[in-house]
Amino acid sequence: MADAQINRQILLVSRPQGEASVSNFKLVETPLAPLQDGEVRVRNHYLSLDPYMRGRMDDAKSYAAPQPLDQVMIGGTAGVVSESRNAAFKTGDHVVGMSGWQEYGTSDGKGLNKVDTSRVPLSAYLGAVGMPGVTAWYGLNGIIEPKAGETVVVSAASGAVGSVVGQLAKAAGCRAVGIAGGAEKCRYVVETLGFDACVDYKAGKLYEDLKAATPDGVDGYFENVGGEVLNAVLARMNAFGRVAVCGMISGYNGKPLPMDAPRLILTQRLKLQGFIVYEHLDIWPQALKELGERIATKKLHFRESITEGLENAPEAFLGLLRGKNFGKQLVKLV
Amino acid sequence: MADAQINRQILLVSRPQGEASVSNFKLVETPLAPLQDGEVRVRNHYLSLDPYMRGRMDDAKSYAAPQPLDQVMIGGTAGVVSESRNAAFKTGDHVVGMSGWQEYGTSDGKGLNKVDTSRVPLSAYLGAVGMPGVTAWYGLNGIIEPKAGETVVVSAASGAVGSVVGQLAKAAGCRAVGIAGGAEKCRYVVETLGFDACVDYKAGKLYEDLKAATPDGVDGYFENVGGEVLNAVLARMNAFGRVAVCGMISGYNGKPLPMDAPRLILTQRLKLQGFIVYEHLDIWPQALKELGERIATKKLHFRESITEGLENAPEAFLGLLRGKNFGKQLVKLV
Repeated sequence: MADAQINRQILLVSRPQGEASVSNFKLVETPLAPLQDGEVRVRNHYLSLDPYMRGRMDDAKSYAAPQPLDQVMIGGTAGVVSESRNAAFKTGDHVVGMSGWQEYGTSDGKGLNKVDTSRVPLSAYLGAVGMPGVTAWYGLNGIIEPKAGETVVVSAASGAVGSVVGQLAKAAGCRAVGIAGGAEKCRYVVETLGFDACVDYKAGKLYEDLKAATPDGVDGYFENVGGEVLNAVLARMNAFGRVAVCGMISGYNGKPLPMDAPRLILTQRLKLQGFIVYEHLDIWPQALKELGERIATKKLHFRESITEGLENAPEAFLGLLRGKNFGKQLVKLV
Repeated sequence: MADAQINRQILLVSRPQGEASVSNFKLVETPLAPLQDGEVRVRNHYLSLDPYMRGRMDDAKSYAAPQPLDQVMIGGTAGVVSESRNAAFKTGDHVVGMSGWQEYGTSDGKGLNKVDTSRVPLSAYLGAVGMPGVTAWYGLNGIIEPKAGETVVVSAASGAVGSVVGQLAKAAGCRAVGIAGGAEKCRYVVETLGFDACVDYKAGKLYEDLKAATPDGVDGYFENVGGEVLNAVLARMNAFGRVAVCGMISGYNGKPLPMDAPRLILTQRLKLQGFIVYEHLDIWPQALKELGERIATKKLHFRESITEGLENAPEAFLGLLRGKNFGKQLVKLV
């Protein structure tokens, strides 16, 4: 009998005090147990890194249960079935699931979905045709409800979610304005993604630049970052503006950042609404169908930041929290 | 020919720098011009004083046009037709309108509504069966949408709006919790209005007292004050909580007060929505009918703070901004 195959995994071993660090994680090697009846084993090709994971690292009241310590860090994965004792899957199937930060995932098949890679690349099912894409779709269509001619602003505009928000807003006939960090990201947002404008928040005059980019004010805002960016955009909101609150990454590392002028909610009759996409499962099929069709027909652009090797996942994740990624952050495992 | 009748009026003559003061207002006497064809003249019996008027005193971007300087201060009024050359009105009709801070209003009849005082007292049409009542009704039913068993909190709970919010929430099967300033107001809110609990924000331990009064958290919040009260209630909100932002009186005198933890909007998936009731005219008839019926059948309690004499309106208004009123603030003119 051959030696058991080894599965490399990354565990969360401690909770951050303030900023997260690589010492919160630990790489371990675990032998793979023989597959049981009904189980399916997936060789993960891509691991998705997403800002929400920072919230799971804390033990605080949040929108999701904390990631337990000393267990495999959660996360979306895309891969290929390597062995199956489950009739619903066969070796070679392309699948996406939530198998976490590890090279192999073993499960009873629940939460594992087969995907068609003939028109959409496997990795895109973790981005524009996955959770980030559906997040963009829901926040825009379910909360902002854009009307043609309106101005829609999105922060973290070059990222996995923001890039889809702006492109869908453009498709809906809106003026799409991004906010991103650095001239290179802004150039990409305008020239490749087709936004009407993009404001570089690192240029030091956020409000003035935003004002120039939104001459008619802001009707819809898709919030990914919080803090000063939120304050600046709120000050540009038109009456009856809608704000979809998807993330506040600038406050994830322990510093709660205030909203300077909540009175604007009243004076401009704004609606601000927080959401998490897993609580709106009813819209996933429609959103995924539309997003998949846009990707397949090249009407939706996406970009990936790919880090190679499971062992580099913690560093890549910390980089994501600091905005070092450019596009959807993935870890390539194969 | 007799001397022309004199109309006493209060004008806004300067804009506040920081806190409003009596020096911003000026009492003048103006002869009444003879009535023209189509006009109707009303002897105002009651002048309504409301927090929104503070916003109109500023020249800043707000939800309404600023009150022009050197003109009669705007405001709701209830009175009796003293003379009419308009077929729609006859002498002795009871009417409500927006004739402002003056003893007589003269108009073409637009915006003037006849009211039935046989079951509802005239002054109540400026309170529970007027703009404040409809404000309560809309914020509760249109934004909070309370479900039986939920907890609804309202600030400025003994006031014209807050008192109606809590009573309607109780009628909808909710736990109604007020926030008010001082033991006497809190006692009134619980014992007379029938709220389940009331927190005295002046007692110095707002969050602890609110926590004790909302053991199951808060599902709906009707915001009248802002500032620390908003921060405390947000920290008690349950997932999917709704906040109707009707007023932020604590910030009206020039100090913008921040929201400490906007991240809660995300983590608790909250909806915050600002509104002004004049933008929802479609719901007024239904709301007024329901409120009038509740008043007529004694199912809705209300309380009034009555100041006598137009000349005392500015002082009474400044008192309202500091929470000195107890119930709906009116100025009695006759």
